[in-house]
Amino acid sequence: MSYYQPLARLVAQFSKLPGVGAKTAQRYAYKIINMTPEEVEDFANALVDTKNSIHYCSVCGNYTDGDVCDICATRDKSVICVVKEPKDVIAFEKIKDYNGVYHVLQGTLNPMQGIGVDDIRIKELMGRLVGVKEVIMATNPDIDGEATATYIARLIKPMGIKVTRLASGISMGSDIEYADEVSLSRALADRKEY
Amino acid sequence: MSYYQPLARLVAQFSKLPGVGAKTAQRYAYKIINMTPEEVEDFANALVDTKNSIHYCSVCGNYTDGDVCDICATRDKSVICVVKEPKDVIAFEKIKDYNGVYHVLQGTLNPMQGIGVDDIRIKELMGRLVGVKEVIMATNPDIDGEATATYIARLIKPMGIKVTRLASGISMGSDIEYADEVSLSRALADRKEY
Repeated sequence: MSYYQPLARLVAQFSKLPGVGAKTAQRYAYKIINMTPEEVEDFANALVDTKNSIHYCSVCGNYTDGDVCDICATRDKSVICVVKEPKDVIAFEKIKDYNGVYHVLQGTLNPMQGIGVDDIRIKELMGRLVGVKEVIMATNPDIDGEATATYIARLIKPMGIKVTRLASGISMGSDIEYADEVSLSRALADRKEY
Repeated sequence: MSYYQPLARLVAQFSKLPGVGAKTAQRYAYKIINMTPEEVEDFANALVDTKNSIHYCSVCGNYTDGDVCDICATRDKSVICVVKEPKDVIAFEKIKDYNGVYHVLQGTLNPMQGIGVDDIRIKELMGRLVGVKEVIMATNPDIDGEATATYIARLIKPMGIKVTRLASGISMGSDIEYADEVSLSRALADRKEY
């Protein structure tokens, strides 16, 4: 489409972002064109600087710009919440109920895709269990997530450390009529007494 | 929110894009973090290079990376479609029905905001009317757009050049029940015989 040829390269870049189609990418490109050269320079520098400065926390595997992340440096280390990705840490931090630390696996076991025990950060988790009272398995409630959680729980339980998993069931505010069968059956099995 | 502190600067930049809130900006930032350093470098270069190379076509005022844009260089110059912004050119090019050239005003008259006749590209339009058979006013059908179109039409008509405006009325596929009053009244006034 030659009519936005001059913008094509930038549109192509924005199209790489998740959920961004040609039309949105074009809107973003126009926004960039309407910024001052200084603003565009800042944007470009933020991209490169953030990418270059960020790496994984040497303890928990979350993103950080230091050696050890803020959470590992300041919080209760006797409880570890095990998640798949750095994004999951943000989800937990938002609910503000948790004061322990995290362990980011950076993936889940998936033999079909060749992701085995050594490809995710299980060894690193085992190495930080001294003095830990509880490990909360918070991988996604899907096949890979559940399998990974079960595998890790079996490794840790014999060490006498409490291992828990997140409750699953029907979502708050959802409609039972539309709940998927697995969630509903899980909700029934895990029902609580008043 | 310290948990994504290392990403904060990049999230802030993405939040400047139109329609992008904190959550979307965060998703974009994570995507960048997961790219290779080379990919991020390319993205940053595309931002700066596009911004630096792009400017207005010396004839029509659309964006171009040369002196004269592709449309002005190759198309029928006897018909000029007058639009407010470069984005409008893309909308027209998409319908593929138009083979004339454009004139981008880069704004519309708005005395309240101090945007007068000399602040938009009216003089430039008057300067390119030699040999032109028709000028199509395609500014937005809002107060400023209509006022601007009427003003320009009054300047051009005495020169013996045909001046037209886009038909307005109810949108195709829309529901009369929900049509706004102005569009419906315009549709009634401009009704056509079978």
